Amino acid sequence: MRQNKEPTVILGVDPGTALTGYGFIVEGPLGELKTLDYGVISTPNGIPLENRLLIIHAELKRLVQLHRPASGAVEKLFFQKNVKTALSVGHARGVVLLALAECGVPIMSYTPNEVKQAVSGYGSADKNQIQQMVKVLLALDDIPRPDDAADALAVAICHLHSRRFENLANEDET
Amino acid sequence: MRQNKEPTVILGVDPGTALTGYGFIVEGPLGELKTLDYGVISTPNGIPLENRLLIIHAELKRLVQLHRPASGAVEKLFFQKNVKTALSVGHARGVVLLALAECGVPIMSYTPNEVKQAVSGYGSADKNQIQQMVKVLLALDDIPRPDDAADALAVAICHLHSRRFENLANEDET
Repeated sequence: MRQNKEPTVILGVDPGTALTGYGFIVEGPLGELKTLDYGVISTPNGIPLENRLLIIHAELKRLVQLHRPASGAVEKLFFQKNVKTALSVGHARGVVLLALAECGVPIMSYTPNEVKQAVSGYGSADKNQIQQMVKVLLALDDIPRPDDAADALAVAICHLHSRRFENLANEDET
Repeated sequence: MRQNKEPTVILGVDPGTALTGYGFIVEGPLGELKTLDYGVISTPNGIPLENRLLIIHAELKRLVQLHRPASGAVEKLFFQKNVKTALSVGHARGVVLLALAECGVPIMSYTPNEVKQAVSGYGSADKNQIQQMVKVLLALDDIPRPDDAADALAVAICHLHSRRFENLANEDET
């Protein structure tokens, strides 16, 4: 039997040293999705990397303490073809994972294909299609900007869909 | 004129998600180098990455608060040829930079060649030669183990040499 659920806040993050996208979404009583908050943590060019990481870490913890997500989702990054980019994104991703773990937020990772599949039902969807689907699924008037925020919301939606499947599977078993 | 110096503690770090090497060295009044502490922060296999990062972050901050280094040196990692390794090391390196920045420790980065050059006077020295030189320069009875600790000490020595050159250059100017 389906149980009444408390509205559950889900966080999606798209890490980067210059821009880290974030999106907090909630699932309403009828399964409808809503955005609670989204945007980017932006760090200035030309400051030392460690100062950028300090900003990302502090700002993400502030947002998590504000919205208290039940869980967080971060994209897996093995798709990075460029070693320099992978290393740079790795720094930001490490600090993002640390901030969530410090706040006791369980973390799931999804591949880019899993995110595309969950949002659009199509693993090879392009960026614009994904963004259109994010807009529709979250009943927004416009595509969320910048791209990093839209990507973060897509990861959050992917995580929420994945939780639904798990719940369905658990219901089947009981 | 050469001024009397307070013994200055320098930290070198070799970041990794499984093993993060660290080495604290001090320069004595006659310019001789001594190890204050060195070792590795080891994290268990099979736990989530974010828990490994929590351990690295907490343990490094504990060590920094204990030894209060004047500055820290971390190897630049652009030499990573493997994207997966670069991403993994990037996570650990991001958390290391964050921990040092949170403790107010100024950070310098050196390329592997700069480290080899500083320790052995030879940019193409092999790992064993570097470790032998670390042993000699720090007047140790044996090569520091494991490799990650020896690498961290090599980075610390590189940073101390670099500071000396800066001091010499400043003396020439005044």
